[in-house]
Amino acid sequence: MKGVVLSLNPYARIVDITHEIPPHDVEAGAFTLLSAYKAFPAPSIHVAVVDPGVGSSRRPLVIAADGQFFVGPDNGIFSYICEREAGHQVFHLTNEKYFRHPVSATFHGRDIFAPVAAALSCGIDVEEFGPAVEDYNRLASLAPEKRRNGTIKARVIHIDRFGNCITNLTEADLTESMIASGVELTIKGRTVRSFKRFFAEETGHRVKLFGLWGSAGFLEIATTNGSAAKLLKVKRGDSVIVHK
Amino acid sequence: MKGVVLSLNPYARIVDITHEIPPHDVEAGAFTLLSAYKAFPAPSIHVAVVDPGVGSSRRPLVIAADGQFFVGPDNGIFSYICEREAGHQVFHLTNEKYFRHPVSATFHGRDIFAPVAAALSCGIDVEEFGPAVEDYNRLASLAPEKRRNGTIKARVIHIDRFGNCITNLTEADLTESMIASGVELTIKGRTVRSFKRFFAEETGHRVKLFGLWGSAGFLEIATTNGSAAKLLKVKRGDSVIVHK
Amino acid sequence: MKGVVLSLNPYARIVDITHEIPPHDVEAGAFTLLSAYKAFPAPSIHVAVVDPGVGSSRRPLVIAADGQFFVGPDNGIFSYICEREAGHQVFHLTNEKYFRHPVSATFHGRDIFAPVAAALSCGIDVEEFGPAVEDYNRLASLAPEKRRNGTIKARVIHIDRFGNCITNLTEADLTESMIASGVELTIKGRTVRSFKRFFAEETGHRVKLFGLWGSAGFLEIATTNGSAAKLLKVKRGDSVIVHK
Repeated sequence: MKGVVLSLNPYARIVDITHEIPPHDVEAGAFTLLSAYKAFPAPSIHVAVVDPGVGSSRRPLVIAADGQFFVGPDNGIFSYICEREAGHQVFHLTNEKYFRHPVSATFHGRDIFAPVAAALSCGIDVEEFGPAVEDYNRLASLAPEKRRNGTIKARVIHIDRFGNCITNLTEADLTESMIASGVELTIKGRTVRSFKRFFAEETGHRVKLFGLWGSAGFLEIATTNGSAAKLLKVKRGDSVIVHK
Repeated sequence: MKGVVLSLNPYARIVDITHEIPPHDVEAGAFTLLSAYKAFPAPSIHVAVVDPGVGSSRRPLVIAADGQFFVGPDNGIFSYICEREAGHQVFHLTNEKYFRHPVSATFHGRDIFAPVAAALSCGIDVEEFGPAVEDYNRLASLAPEKRRNGTIKARVIHIDRFGNCITNLTEADLTESMIASGVELTIKGRTVRSFKRFFAEETGHRVKLFGLWGSAGFLEIATTNGSAAKLLKVKRGDSVIVHK
Repeated sequence: MKGVVLSLNPYARIVDITHEIPPHDVEAGAFTLLSAYKAFPAPSIHVAVVDPGVGSSRRPLVIAADGQFFVGPDNGIFSYICEREAGHQVFHLTNEKYFRHPVSATFHGRDIFAPVAAALSCGIDVEEFGPAVEDYNRLASLAPEKRRNGTIKARVIHIDRFGNCITNLTEADLTESMIASGVELTIKGRTVRSFKRFFAEETGHRVKLFGLWGSAGFLEIATTNGSAAKLLKVKRGDSVIVHK
């Protein structure tokens, strides 16, 4: 893919965000992009490929959002960014003029995404690549569920390589009074209590749990020098309940 | 190695193809290079080091092929490219003027390959680095064996990180009539049948096998959302027989 | 982090040295930097982050040494370089003008180290970032212990991905007469004998051990096509005794 980009634009600056997305793990890719894109200058072009699977018929897409571009398969990998960026536009890559030929059945990264990214970097207008679409694939929403009884049902959306459990809860999801008076989180039967902006497990267990506002703006559950995910046997998708 | 290149040519563009070659696995390195080099613009310079082993006396080489250059040890890692590119030339790196001194016993990547690559990127002629050689190390040929009875004996030459089994069979190895009338592949006692350009396992098993022409031009055996290598207990080198 | 650097200096050249430091392993990071920095042209800027731990209060530092700069946490990761480079200067990063705001609690790499590195690359004077400090954290010294009885007590300071055991012994630690008359090393009960500049295990065992002066200038214990660390059950910190 880098060779294709440099063939078409020798001046392109290419940096790798990560090569550690597990095979087929679209949600890990989506979270990683969400964490990273705001730190890149506009108009960066983000190319993401999470193995589309053999024989996959995912549409190739380009998304314009926040002054940046996102090129990759229609498998939800850009879903969180679209949810965050209200003014985003999504285009189906159909204009084969910008593809590398012959287009292989299995390596759209090399034959579609890379040459389209290179064309964008040369100033080709995003509308040149194909028609706007609105029915792109979406992952489960990032928004936690606010329940009638005043609790909030959040979930673990990512587990990082240190075992920190990142939830979909942001400071904006808590009311001022919650922040002022303190809240409790329950995760896997254990309770973490907030004191203003910092969270810490209060009682009894030998190993302490902590909650903190992580670098992507989400509440993370962590433990000192160890893996909170292993300690709690947490999997992505597990519930985190916020009590008043 | 990157530091050495940038010390000698601050304008060099450096991209990483992979850091995931297993230790000592020359064939995995050779296949990865073969898959990637055609996508790079001439005159790219490819530097490849698969740990040459302690006390190794592999000759350092530079190869000119297809308008590109390949710098690394004489352990077969460029063998597939030489087999593909008829007009290739191989030179033994002996001109110490282009080495980094002192040359360590164990890190030729830093002390020989990187500075030679930097010199090439500055326009030094490839013949400056040492004498042409023809007796370089070769891996087993990429060509499948055409047998008297009309079958073809191919083999698995690579297993990728998704468990797809890449064979050394290309479309050019099949006759027109084979493609027209259909062929059968046998791998580890299971049969995959072709229908024109697509292959699929026909019978009985709960998990389906697929064959497809992969992005490097070779037939790959794959399974949906899983590892065909694990499913079939395939190792590199295992036979794939093509019946009429 | 790369996005932040490129936002502030679009002309910055960024290369990755490694992403394979195990979580929390400051000594592995320190050794890797020590091995690499001399190959980079001055004034390269090295940014190193070994996960500082949740809630960590490590000071952020910049170090000027050998015409290069080193930006990262005060956890000892630059300790070996400071030990090597007598004229080094260490500064505490306190000038928030050069930080990315808001500064997160958990990702100083993005919010402090990357923007400071970018500022350095734009020519900002190193003294601008904060006050000089001398009480930075140091790892155990690289110097082996010279004992009264004429032996030297060295230790394994790193085990590389091939299982080679890198000690803290350099040629400068041996006397001329030691080199001339030969020395013996003992590691985990096995003996390796030197003959001038080369070391080899002499007797009895089926698998041979070798000693060699590695690419970073340290004596390494290795075995042919295998892991010396596994063979000897060596861990970092284990003793290596040099007898006359």
